[in-house]
Order: sequence, then structure tokens, then C-alpha cells
Amino acid sequence: MAHINLGNDLPGIRGPMAYSPETARPLNELAEILLRDDDNTLSRGERELIGTYTSWLNDCFFCQNVHGSLAQHYLECDMPTLDAIKIDPQTSPISPKLKALLPIAAAVQKGGKNVTEPMIAKARREGATDREIHDTVLIAAAFCMYNRYVDGLATWAPEDRQFYVDRAPRRAAEGYIDFDLHK
Amino acid sequence: MAHINLGNDLPGIRGPMAYSPETARPLNELAEILLRDDDNTLSRGERELIGTYTSWLNDCFFCQNVHGSLAQHYLECDMPTLDAIKIDPQTSPISPKLKALLPIAAAVQKGGKNVTEPMIAKARREGATDREIHDTVLIAAAFCMYNRYVDGLATWAPEDRQFYVDRAPRRAAEGYIDFDLHK
Repeated sequence: MAHINLGNDLPGIRGPMAYSPETARPLNELAEILLRDDDNTLSRGERELIGTYTSWLNDCFFCQNVHGSLAQHYLECDMPTLDAIKIDPQTSPISPKLKALLPIAAAVQKGGKNVTEPMIAKARREGATDREIHDTVLIAAAFCMYNRYVDGLATWAPEDRQFYVDRAPRRAAEGYIDFDLHK
Repeated sequence: MAHINLGNDLPGIRGPMAYSPETARPLNELAEILLRDDDNTLSRGERELIGTYTSWLNDCFFCQNVHGSLAQHYLECDMPTLDAIKIDPQTSPISPKLKALLPIAAAVQKGGKNVTEPMIAKARREGATDREIHDTVLIAAAFCMYNRYVDGLATWAPEDRQFYVDRAPRRAAEGYIDFDLHK
């Protein structure tokens, strides 16, 4: 049960978002721009993966499954492959650039000062642009917020991971702005 | 020097915000609603204090001084008093309610699952409402993002703490939406 009376039984971040629509608006706008905007050289799947990996490091079940399922959807991979990426990106079937960006996300998850020049240099060597490094840092930072919002209020989440996989195509189609929190 | 070429020499979060205005918009809208909206039973000073305390725990010099100076401004206290609150809220001259809310912010800073039922019960006994608990969690979560954005990109910050104190009245008057990043 959530720490406060949210006045609804929606899962995960949807509960506090319905409770507080005025703060939900910029939270969703940020997700829409960061994760879905087409003017970005990181694919939607890559950006969802950065958010998923951060949520996994923060041990946020709801976020890692919502966004993990979206990453699966966009990257057209299965759950075991996605889990292998989370557990050890360096031995997983992702691009060298993503293998260099995910450690930056992991450093941000621990705290901003953990990002080092060698990490940045490595990402550049693998072809990452300034914009891609910026977005990796901000996606990881933003999920450190979303994850804490979800778990800091002790929201509930469906335990069956297939629930999230089944919803992903619809979430991918609707995006983060105009979807109905109650559906 | 920042990890990426921001194309400007603005301090702290202003640098990446000028570099990426499309993500700056929701980041500033969130701050405006969370920290300044008048429809809130936590005063602006109390909300800035929650953000300052979280930034202090995250060791983010820029954010703890920008928002600490705003807290000083609203609460009409001096820098030694503000520092005493950051170092040990429980022995500092703040309300019993705030003494119960700041540990919730500290728990969120460590990770959402660190918020416990006894912390929530204590806050309620000191008069905190569901809304105030919600806002404490979201303010702390949001500063876990802002702090990581600022330090994850290695932005620079003026070292003289008086710089922030001198700017606080203007920041308090302008708010987070319509201010000029370059002034």
C-alpha cells in the first residue's frame, strides 16, 4: 500500500501522477522530449534502454519493466536479451557506442561526480556526440527522479512482467503526453 | 571545464539549460510548480530548504547554494543558520514538522525504498498532510535529478557563496520560468 492515500489504485508512477496532475505534466513532457523526440541520433530504443538500465540499478521494478518493455518493443529483442544487457552491458549484443554510454549512466546513478573524463573520452572514441552524452546524463538523472518518486511513495506494481510487455506497443503508439492514466 | 562543449560559459545548471532549451522547459516548469506554486501548505522557504538539504546530501555545490540562498531569503535567516540546518536538522531551529519531513527527503536521496512507515507516521504526528509528504518525496527526487545533471556534466560554479546570496532576491522575484538564463 502506498505511503499516502493517492485516491486511486493505479500502478506505479500513474498513481501519484493522477494524484498530482500539475506536477505530472512537466514530468511527462520531460519523458516525451528525452525519450521520444525524433530530432535525436539515439534511437528511441537506445534511450529507453538507458532509462531501463538506470531503473535496474535503482532497483525500481515498475520503471525497469515499463521502459524495459518499451526498449524490447523498439529494439525488437526478447526479455532474456534485455535482462542480459541490464546485468552486463559489456558482454551483451549492443553497439560499442551504447557500451560506452551505459557506464556514464551508471556513474550518474551513483552521483554526478562519478562521471569521469576517461568515460567521456571512451564514449567519444566510440562515436558518441556531445548531444548524445548530454542526453545520456539527463536520461539517467531523470530516471533517478522517476524511480525515487515511484518507490519513495511505495506505489504498487503488477508482478507479472508479461503485463508490461503486452502494454508496450500501445505505450509506444501513445507516447507520454496524451495517454489516459487510467487505461 | 564541462565534459561537453556547452557553447556558453554560464554557471551550474544554466549551462546545459542554454545548451538544451527543449529539456530546460519542463525542468523549469517542474521547479516552478514544486517550489513556488502558492497553492501549497509548505512555504516557499520550506520547499527550498528540502531541495537545499537534498542537494547538500548529494554534495552539489551549485544547487545547494542557489536554493540555500533562496531558502535564506524566504526564511529570513543567515548562512550559519542555514548551514546548521543542513548539518543537523534535528538540533536546528526549524519546525517539528520540517524535522520529520527532512529525514524523508534524506531517505529518498539514498533511494526510494529507504522511506519507511515509521518515518511517514512520525511526519503525520507532527502535522504533515499527504500532500506535504508527496511534495517532500517529489522535491527530493527532483533534486536527485537536478544535482546529477549539474555534476554529471561537470559544470562550473562560482566559489564565493555570497554570489548566490546576492542573487537570491532577484531569483525569488523572477521565478523559474521566465528568467533570462544569461543574466
